[in-house]
Amino acid sequence: MATWSAPGKLFLFGEHAVVYGKPGIAMAIRPRVYVTVRKSSHAHHARSLYIEQCFKEMGVRGSVYINSQIPSSSGLGSSGAVTVATLAAINEEFNIGKTIHEIANLAFKIEKKVQKGRASPTDTSVSTYGGMFLILNGERKRLAPQNYQFVIGNSQISHSTSRMVERVAQFKEGDPSICNPIIDAIGGLSYQALQHIHDPIRLGELMDINHALLEALGVGHPALSRLVLACRQTGAYGAKITGAGGGGCMVALAPKNLKGRVAGAIEVFDGRAIITSLDCEGLRREEEG
Amino acid sequence: MATWSAPGKLFLFGEHAVVYGKPGIAMAIRPRVYVTVRKSSHAHHARSLYIEQCFKEMGVRGSVYINSQIPSSSGLGSSGAVTVATLAAINEEFNIGKTIHEIANLAFKIEKKVQKGRASPTDTSVSTYGGMFLILNGERKRLAPQNYQFVIGNSQISHSTSRMVERVAQFKEGDPSICNPIIDAIGGLSYQALQHIHDPIRLGELMDINHALLEALGVGHPALSRLVLACRQTGAYGAKITGAGGGGCMVALAPKNLKGRVAGAIEVFDGRAIITSLDCEGLRREEEG
Repeated sequence: MATWSAPGKLFLFGEHAVVYGKPGIAMAIRPRVYVTVRKSSHAHHARSLYIEQCFKEMGVRGSVYINSQIPSSSGLGSSGAVTVATLAAINEEFNIGKTIHEIANLAFKIEKKVQKGRASPTDTSVSTYGGMFLILNGERKRLAPQNYQFVIGNSQISHSTSRMVERVAQFKEGDPSICNPIIDAIGGLSYQALQHIHDPIRLGELMDINHALLEALGVGHPALSRLVLACRQTGAYGAKITGAGGGGCMVALAPKNLKGRVAGAIEVFDGRAIITSLDCEGLRREEEG
Repeated sequence: MATWSAPGKLFLFGEHAVVYGKPGIAMAIRPRVYVTVRKSSHAHHARSLYIEQCFKEMGVRGSVYINSQIPSSSGLGSSGAVTVATLAAINEEFNIGKTIHEIANLAFKIEKKVQKGRASPTDTSVSTYGGMFLILNGERKRLAPQNYQFVIGNSQISHSTSRMVERVAQFKEGDPSICNPIIDAIGGLSYQALQHIHDPIRLGELMDINHALLEALGVGHPALSRLVLACRQTGAYGAKITGAGGGGCMVALAPKNLKGRVAGAIEVFDGRAIITSLDCEGLRREEEG
């Protein structure tokens, strides 16, 4: 029996724009996903496509137990975290001997297959390596870790990442004179954020601008707008949609002493609040308890 | 005794961007301002700077009575409308013989003097000529009139046009890589709006995008965001800040049968609603009653 865990991921800047070669900033966050794998020749109960693919790619059969604290389909990288943790647990349990990099690459391959080409390598690499990254053209550059307090608001509005990516693609094709400069502005934002990564007030302002630009891209949702407004009103430095939008989550950067208030504001407006921070650890072997 | 009236003005697209050579769409709207001027050699009661300047520029003295249905300092062109109507009433009462064009130019000169260079000719020309215009580099091109229903929401949050214009100027200077593409996107929007001026659904979508881009420029206000969200939720085709932002008004384009609901939504969120439409008449001589 082997148990591995991996963190969720959060887009701080640049979601959607990264699809078009602009920079973005993403990071690993608590909560984590825990996956336990056990050798077994008769694992026949229904499992997700991701899990099936993990066993298939590793060429073994076994049973799996998942304890995920990341809400699924919320833009927090739940499927990427499950995939890398499952591969790592299979790797140990069956003594396959893959490196961490091979696991990251294989996880991305599986995500791409299951999501029919729409996946980005961001989710799986952030969950594998932990920490904070600049994302540019599919490459990642590690950034110095920041001790910030984030409050995530899950609107609990279901959304489809691929549908949102498609919506932006259609906007770009139909109205390039409007859409292209919006994407350029988001790119400019990520570079500014890099230069002010130690300044929460400035980062908050940039998050607010990024939020408005995501709304301009057409991936907003009234429930997310209300959560964002409520977070700003209770003293967050800034707040924005995180992930694909159209539902799912928003994130606020909050002063440490106000994280409770910001979380309260989210709950008042029917969101589920998660207080979180950067997780510098990526894939981690868990001791058997 | 002479009484003249002039309409207010509404920016439908492109406020702030017009300052930087991008196109905008503005129109004359009800409510109107009514100004009565009477010959009098002893007019000594306190009057606004605009009125003082009107008499000074026309070289006469008289008394004036103003009946304005346009809320002042709300971005609806109240000062421009008062100025052109006052000049026209003085012109008649004192038989000065200026043409309507001369009055428009003089009104702009007065606005520029009182507002210390910050005025644009849009307000005074829209109030003088009535109708709908494409504004580009200070020039205006008349557009075919549209029979649309607009609902204005006055947030009653006081704001300063010059401070908002200054804020955008600072943003542009400090973060050109973010601000310039936002202004470009707004320019693209106005051109798109021109091409779809007969399609309220498309115009509404473009208004929503323009609103998000104004928020990205930093001229939003939580009270305006709430009014805009409320209007969309009650079935408006689209809604946006109108004018300088940071307070003042928003405008929704509404299906005719829903204008009451949209107005109700505005009032629920502490705004003052004005149901209005295009006013094709500019300066108008009123019969004495």
